[in-house]
Amino acid sequence: MKGASLDSCPANGGHGSHSYSKNSHYQKSFVDIVRIKVEEEIKENFNTTHLISSSSSNTIRLADLGCATGPNTFWTMQYIVNAIKSNSPNISPNFQVFFNDQISNDFNALFLSLPPDRDYFAAAAPGSFHGRLFPDSSLHLVHTAYSIHWLSAVPEEVKDKRSAAWNGGRIHYIGAAEGVVEAYAGRFSADMERFLKARAEEMVGGGIMVMICLGVCDDVSPSQLPFRILYDNLAFALIDMAKEGLLNEDEVDSFNIPIFIPCPKKMRKLIEKDGHFSIERIELAEPATWLKENVDIRVWINHIRAAMEGTFIQHFKKKELIDEMFERVIKKLSNYPEEINEKLHEKVQLFAVLKRKDDAF
Amino acid sequence: MKGASLDSCPANGGHGSHSYSKNSHYQKSFVDIVRIKVEEEIKENFNTTHLISSSSSNTIRLADLGCATGPNTFWTMQYIVNAIKSNSPNISPNFQVFFNDQISNDFNALFLSLPPDRDYFAAAAPGSFHGRLFPDSSLHLVHTAYSIHWLSAVPEEVKDKRSAAWNGGRIHYIGAAEGVVEAYAGRFSADMERFLKARAEEMVGGGIMVMICLGVCDDVSPSQLPFRILYDNLAFALIDMAKEGLLNEDEVDSFNIPIFIPCPKKMRKLIEKDGHFSIERIELAEPATWLKENVDIRVWINHIRAAMEGTFIQHFKKKELIDEMFERVIKKLSNYPEEINEKLHEKVQLFAVLKRKDDAF
Repeated sequence: MKGASLDSCPANGGHGSHSYSKNSHYQKSFVDIVRIKVEEEIKENFNTTHLISSSSSNTIRLADLGCATGPNTFWTMQYIVNAIKSNSPNISPNFQVFFNDQISNDFNALFLSLPPDRDYFAAAAPGSFHGRLFPDSSLHLVHTAYSIHWLSAVPEEVKDKRSAAWNGGRIHYIGAAEGVVEAYAGRFSADMERFLKARAEEMVGGGIMVMICLGVCDDVSPSQLPFRILYDNLAFALIDMAKEGLLNEDEVDSFNIPIFIPCPKKMRKLIEKDGHFSIERIELAEPATWLKENVDIRVWINHIRAAMEGTFIQHFKKKELIDEMFERVIKKLSNYPEEINEKLHEKVQLFAVLKRKDDAF
Repeated sequence: MKGASLDSCPANGGHGSHSYSKNSHYQKSFVDIVRIKVEEEIKENFNTTHLISSSSSNTIRLADLGCATGPNTFWTMQYIVNAIKSNSPNISPNFQVFFNDQISNDFNALFLSLPPDRDYFAAAAPGSFHGRLFPDSSLHLVHTAYSIHWLSAVPEEVKDKRSAAWNGGRIHYIGAAEGVVEAYAGRFSADMERFLKARAEEMVGGGIMVMICLGVCDDVSPSQLPFRILYDNLAFALIDMAKEGLLNEDEVDSFNIPIFIPCPKKMRKLIEKDGHFSIERIELAEPATWLKENVDIRVWINHIRAAMEGTFIQHFKKKELIDEMFERVIKKLSNYPEEINEKLHEKVQLFAVLKRKDDAF
């Protein structure tokens, strides 16, 4: 039960101007898009009566993996509880919701903002979801949104100057050399293998897992990913700062954002390889159908910052430069308003619903 | 599921010089004294095989109510898990431990110090233990140490100048007017009623509850309690500070520490009134048998401070005076070294082991 050593950091805690709780309404809107689909899948696939009758307990246990500090997780858990309830109006199970994120997540802030009128028992289970977090066969529904695209760590070889996969001058695999792409993809596969194995052990037969993450269309070359404009300009800002002596060039070269963006084909392959889940639904969606006007680039970058700032600070150890860095990114991206708006309307959200098969593990 | 409004505050968070985690080795020693008794009771009364076989789940769920920030809770939960394991060497249940304390407890500090080599799944369930925290019939063992003597709130009437139970010039019921004593005792009874009702609903039949709290011998007058020397000198320090204009006199008058110290007779009566638990053991113990030399009054007061400081700060809103206040208490108590050492060797620890009866709730 030892946590993996992590290069990714939790979302910003607290409730300040750069906190995740204040800068996550885009993610809320992204998840909002799938709400109807999740409700459909629960109606069709989540047999509350059967799940309760096959157990001596009267409790339905849910987990949100990568919950950050709210409020999106509360909103999501409540609509899922409501959907399960309306599935079986004649029984009244207890609900217990486990909020999960890395051990260093700001759980104090999460607890202080727990909705007082929730109708579930709230608990937290801190730790890496790439390992076991819960007892055998104890969860009935697992939800994870905008978390599993974070790798458990940056692949070692992309930080190693002597390696063919060295990623100097870039901060991501998008647009990078083939060795870098392979290293990222390999790490994602290994992470998902551990993720699915752990969930298969923790979930009851018939239990449902909802997975939402960044995604890309099948067979798109990594250099063509819509997120390239963001990662390229983040890298350009860092390189400029290194040239001006604000950051160390070696540190910029060794900095890599541990995010991998899978396509449905890859995800399907990993789920089938694990073998414990049936795929009830897997698709790509456009997350920003709600976005009618042009995106405000500052607001958008503040959302990215709330989720990613910790990863920068952990690497560069220069908290005082973080405002400067994000200001430079905003300035650079402001030159491409149309391109950014176009990208935000591409299908960059992977949505999957799995069902734990009914075999004995 | 709304938390009660609380006048008591959680123990000091973090890991600084006045944190509970750095100033709780006395409590550790106090609980150490009961370890052998708890192990005996688990051996005799906790039928792991039966509890597992009567459930479709392979999980034993434990809760520590009022866990503070560690490390005592980790040490206790581990020895209890070990005791349950050695009860039934032929089965290998999963263990899930729920750490509970008030919502404002420093759970971040608790999570960061979770023992990496624990052999249980860790979770937290924040909230007041005077209400429900867990699903129906979901807990197999509940432990609570040095928590249930904290009242859910100071009784309103002791803060009310117009009431016969007004407690001006004192900060506790010990040595106070009869109306004050009754108000405190009434609140404790109501709190324990809610506590026992909630636990009866949450625990499985055959489940065990270990309760450790401050205690006093049956039929001792409240004015004779061993803790009087501490509370009187705390009050004297506050009154001095009010006289010197450092604190407001009305605020000193309205300050009351929400702790009640029950005797076994009272506790037994409350448990029998609830009716859902059999009393396997109830006794008073001397918690400081390990104390061979004279107590260091500064170390002792630092322990009191780590647990109680928040309650003072919440009331007086003068964090900057807290050092001054405790220094004055240390100075005052240093005049009574023999009396204090004598008091610390009295039987001031109530220890009870209950078993949830096997009826349907």
